[in-house]
This record gives sequence, structure tokens and C-alpha cells, in this order.
Amino acid sequence: MKKMTVVGIIAEYNPFHNGHLYQLQTIRRHFPKAVIVVVMSGNFLERGEPACVDKWTRAKQALAAGVNLVIELPVAYCVQPADRFADGAIKLLKELRIDYLAFGAEHADYDFLAMAKKVQRVHGDFRQFNESYAAAYQRAVTDKLGHSVDQPNDLLGLAYAKAILANQAAIKIWPMQRIGAAYHEQQLPAGQAIASASAIRRAWQHDPHKIVPYLPATSRTIIQRKQPVSWDDFWPLLRYQLLVTPLARLRQLYDVTAGVEYRLLQQLEFLNDSPITFETWLKKVKTKRYTYTHLSRLAVIILLQLTSQEVEQQWQQPYLRILGFDTAGQRLLHCVKKNSLWPLIAKVSQDEKNGIMQNDYKAGRVYATIWHEQQDLKRSPIILDR
Amino acid sequence: MKKMTVVGIIAEYNPFHNGHLYQLQTIRRHFPKAVIVVVMSGNFLERGEPACVDKWTRAKQALAAGVNLVIELPVAYCVQPADRFADGAIKLLKELRIDYLAFGAEHADYDFLAMAKKVQRVHGDFRQFNESYAAAYQRAVTDKLGHSVDQPNDLLGLAYAKAILANQAAIKIWPMQRIGAAYHEQQLPAGQAIASASAIRRAWQHDPHKIVPYLPATSRTIIQRKQPVSWDDFWPLLRYQLLVTPLARLRQLYDVTAGVEYRLLQQLEFLNDSPITFETWLKKVKTKRYTYTHLSRLAVIILLQLTSQEVEQQWQQPYLRILGFDTAGQRLLHCVKKNSLWPLIAKVSQDEKNGIMQNDYKAGRVYATIWHEQQDLKRSPIILDR
Repeated sequence: MKKMTVVGIIAEYNPFHNGHLYQLQTIRRHFPKAVIVVVMSGNFLERGEPACVDKWTRAKQALAAGVNLVIELPVAYCVQPADRFADGAIKLLKELRIDYLAFGAEHADYDFLAMAKKVQRVHGDFRQFNESYAAAYQRAVTDKLGHSVDQPNDLLGLAYAKAILANQAAIKIWPMQRIGAAYHEQQLPAGQAIASASAIRRAWQHDPHKIVPYLPATSRTIIQRKQPVSWDDFWPLLRYQLLVTPLARLRQLYDVTAGVEYRLLQQLEFLNDSPITFETWLKKVKTKRYTYTHLSRLAVIILLQLTSQEVEQQWQQPYLRILGFDTAGQRLLHCVKKNSLWPLIAKVSQDEKNGIMQNDYKAGRVYATIWHEQQDLKRSPIILDR
Repeated sequence: MKKMTVVGIIAEYNPFHNGHLYQLQTIRRHFPKAVIVVVMSGNFLERGEPACVDKWTRAKQALAAGVNLVIELPVAYCVQPADRFADGAIKLLKELRIDYLAFGAEHADYDFLAMAKKVQRVHGDFRQFNESYAAAYQRAVTDKLGHSVDQPNDLLGLAYAKAILANQAAIKIWPMQRIGAAYHEQQLPAGQAIASASAIRRAWQHDPHKIVPYLPATSRTIIQRKQPVSWDDFWPLLRYQLLVTPLARLRQLYDVTAGVEYRLLQQLEFLNDSPITFETWLKKVKTKRYTYTHLSRLAVIILLQLTSQEVEQQWQQPYLRILGFDTAGQRLLHCVKKNSLWPLIAKVSQDEKNGIMQNDYKAGRVYATIWHEQQDLKRSPIILDR
């Protein structure tokens, strides 16, 4: 039996749109027989925000668009800066035995692995208190490479390549030129099929019908049924939590260090009288050192009350949580099952929910207070019959 | 200068209604020159629920109805069974140098102090796991007295009398025959002026206009401006807190002992799929041993994350928080200031909010997430010019 080719993707699908469909179609054209596996963030994402649609809906949309297997990236890896996010995802994809990592980049012609070798030991300089980790990191990268890497998807690609090297993974990279909207573009581009995820989320809040042209047919039903979830939904819970969590407990939470806890609480007190949103609060807390995104991640960590110990447990006890698959995906799962020591989790057991899955279980329950659908207990993977 | 006569009242005013007005008018008729001081629960009450109207509004209504001084009963004393609630209130009233304690009773002819002497050492039997503290207590009281005391205000009166003895307070009691509605009556009595507080709260939820006849004129404006606060408002916050508070932290909270924490969490998990209200959850958690009221108090303690240590701190560091006064009340305050070592708190300072007042400050901030008016910082006592 010929060994199957496996192509891996790291994605958030927030929400799943035509750009993602285009990427999958392109991969399928180049690898017609490959198994495509996606490691996807769960209900809380890399930029420190809730997913606008729950993980099950997004997994289903990905399967409908041609993905063969969807695995959940545990929350302890999701709510992390690019380097750690990439490291977690690559660890999972290595265990899933992928041959290629496909990713979109603003400069698909970069030699990401060669660049990664040069900057492998660069992790930014935390001693610079007047600039953010991200800024320090970019400066250091420019120093090493002789040119800057400052586009969001190029930076992610570089992080993936570094993680491949660090994990000594036998993974070839397959960068694709990104087309259409820029990552941070806030406007829907009229007359085109591809818009940025953030433009789609923004428009969805105000007028769901406007985003229809930018979504595959299979992703359209959800917008008739649900409002997109955002920080606005969780803000009352987070604000309340900040009022009752004692400082000593805050300091046990992951990455809540170096006095940032005082700033978080202080600004909330100053804003006590005015009508506050998540955004107004975070903009007040923001400094040169603590970026909006960094603080958003801390906000998720506080919302979910994830301690350092709990996050580190995740790194020591890895597993593969299956969200959905088709026949080809199932073949890959059989192969992984034979070769991996990691637990493959289809249905979450009592032991798992209190044990290795406890962070994701907690994240799912908090998400479900807004989404109103159970996320883990009694949920089985989606099985797609093609 | 003739010593002033001071009459004390322990009240919750949830909300302030004609029955309370009638009580004050009766006291005033008997003690025309007395200073009337009320020790009033803050924003969370003895039965384990949020006040339907904030403490400032209720203090203002009490002043308008003839009270001369309103002092806040700290939250650590409020959310307690009758005995401890009474003990806290009497400690404050003793420090306020009251001569008489006035209270309504179903049997105003009882000799409460004589009864209190007989049952002073009766505190119910916690070893009986198949009955509640309240049931065990009533049984023990009946044994000692030869007759039962089972009406809610009689029981409170007995608790006050016991607290007077226990605190060796030179306070005479002045029970008043309750008229009109029974304490637990759920219906508004047509054609009468006095309804029970719970009937008023219930009717207010559905039709604010219906409750107008049962409120003094000065209490009517609030119902045009606000919806009554209830557990329904705080339930999303409590439910979320139960999802993220680890067991070890739950066990640090006041009175969360003997495995009740498992029951609280377990029932929440069972109910995960159905639309849950505070009431449906609590009714599932309820057992013979854990009454609805006992569990409601635990719910407030969890909502506010009050640890045993924090509650006990309150008992060791007493203070008098002034909510409002008139000229007569001010005279009493001067006298108390001269004779008491307890801090008299008019405006909450930074030190106090992080120190002796921290529980009340926290309770006020959580309450304000629903009431939308700052409760402590920058608030001064209400001063009534008669």
C-alpha cells in the first residue's frame, strides 16, 4: 500500500470564508490524493478573543470545503503569542504525520526555513520596558536577516518554520501567495469574493446579509441562525471576575506577571462611573509595552481562570481531540492511532474532563454560556459522508 | 443636658413599604423625642439575595419616613443565618448606644428575653444530616420552652433577644404586634395598605403600577426609574463563576464545607443542556439538610467570593458605615464618636476600601454592575434637612 500524502494546515476560521475555500481548492489541485488535516483553534483564539462561531460549526464548514480531518488546538496553545501558538500546532501536526505544511503568506517566495535557521534563537527582548514583545521581535529579526518581516502571515509562516526546526519535524513547507484582502483590512471589498475575516466579523455585527458574497454556500446558514460571538458578550463576565478575583489569585494565572495585574484593576476602577466596553477598558490599559493583543490574551486567561500550572500541564500531557473527519480522514486516524502514544479523544470521558482535557472543557463551558450549545460532554466528532 | 433616648431597628427594607412606615410612625408616637437609628443590610440580604433596590435609595426612603440615622450592616453579617445576623446587628446597635430595640413580631406578647435565657445555648444540631439547621433549631427550642416558636418575625425577635444577652447589651426590647400581611404572603391584599415585601417584589417584576398603593409616596419614584434587581440579574455571573472556580478555591470560601461544593457543581453540570435559572438550579441542589435559604446564602458568598478569612476579619475589625442622617441623627453620631473606638466611616478612603471595608466594597462593585451606580467610592452620606 502506497503511503498517503498528508498536508497540514493551521487555522482559526473566524469565520470560515471564501479565502479559506480558495486555499483548500488550491491545495487540492496540487495534492489531488492527499489527506488534508487542519489543526484548528477551539473557541478562544490566538489574538485573545472568543471565536465568532463555535468550534463545531467551523469544523463542519471546513469539512464541507474539502478538509478530511479537523483536530482541535488546545486552548493553552491558542491563547499565546505566535511563537508558542506555532509550536503547539506543529507538535500536533508532527504527531499527525503530515508531509507538508501549507500556509498563506504575503511573500510566498521567502525561503522560510532558511530564514528560520537564522532567527531561531531570537525571541524578542523583554528587558525593553518601553516597547512590546512584538516590536522588539521584529527589530531583532530585521537585524539578523538584513530585511524586515512585518506582514502578519509572513510572520506566522516564519513562526511555523521555526517550530518545525525546533521540534525536528520532518515537515516540508508549502507557502501559498495570499490573494485578495489584507489580513487587517476592515472594509468589505465590493465586487470581489474574498474579504478579510475581520472585515467579515465587523460587517456581520451590523448587517448579516452584506457578508453573504464572501462566504461559501455551506457557511451561509449559520448567519441566519446566530449572532456572532464577540468580547462584548463575555465582557460582563470578565469585568465581574476582575472585581472579585484577589490579587494573589490573579498572580497564579498564566502570564499575569510583572505588575500588569495592578494596571488591569486600576483602569477598571477609574472607569467605574462611565459605561465601559471591553474595548474602552483595554485601550486604557494599553501601554507601549503591553499591546492590545497581548492584553486581550491575558483577558481570556483571566476569563477562563487558567493558572500557570494548568497551562503547563497541557504541554506535558498532549492529546489529539478529534472534531470531525471523512473517510480519508478516518484512514489517517487509524494510522495515527497505530503510531502515536498520544490519547486520541473522540468523546470526552469523565476522567478526561477533569484530567487532561480540563482546560478545554472549562473553556467550552464558559463559551457555551453565550453560544447555548454544549461544547464537549456528550459531543461526538462530526462524520462527513462524501 | 438630658440624655437622649435612642431607639434601634434592624431592617432590610426590601423594598421600603407602608408596613415599615407604619412601624416607624408607631415608634414615633411612643417615643416622640427619641432618635431612631436603623441598622440596615447593604446590597445583599439575610435570605441570600440581592436587594431589589440599592442601599442608598433604601436609606433615603427610611430617612424620609422619619428615621434619624441609617447605618449599614456589613455584608459579612448580612448573609448569615438569623442568629449571626442578629448578633452582628446588635453589636452595632450596642455601639450606637440604643436604649430600646423595636421589632415587629407575630406574638408581641412573648417575653422574648425570658425565652432567650432558656434557649441561649441552643444552636441546632448539625449532626442530624437529614434535617436542616432551621428545623433542628426549632425542634430544640420547642423542647426547651414547652411551646413552639415558628413564625418568622418571632424567631428573629428571639434571635435579637439572645444576641442582647450574649453581648451583655443594656438594651430593652420593644416588640410590636405585626399587622397586615404575613411575612411570606405572596399575594397583594386588595383594598389594604400593607402587603408583604415578597408580594411587592413579585408584583413589581410584572406590573410596577400594582404596587403603588403599598408604598409610601416617597418610595414611589424609584419604581418609575428602575427594574427591581433579583437573582435573575446575577445568575449569569454566578453560573460563570461556578464554571471557573476550582474546588480548592471554593473550599476557601465562607461556609462552603462538608461536600456541599460537589453538589453545587454537579447539579449545574446535569442541567447543562436545559435553559437554567437560578431557581431551577437551586431547587435541584436543595436537600433536607441544605435548605433553599441556606444555599442562597452560599450563592451570595460564591458570587462575591468571600473567603472564611475575609468574613472573620469583619468580626475582628468592626466599624460603623454611615449611609444617611438628619440633625437628630447627627447629634447621636457626635455622641457615638466621643464614646466609641470603632471607626465611623462617612466617605470610604483608599485604605478602607482595601482594608476594613474590603468586603462591602467588593459587594458594592458587584452590585453596581447591575444597578449601574457607584456604591462606595466618592459617595457621601445622605443628609436630610427636615
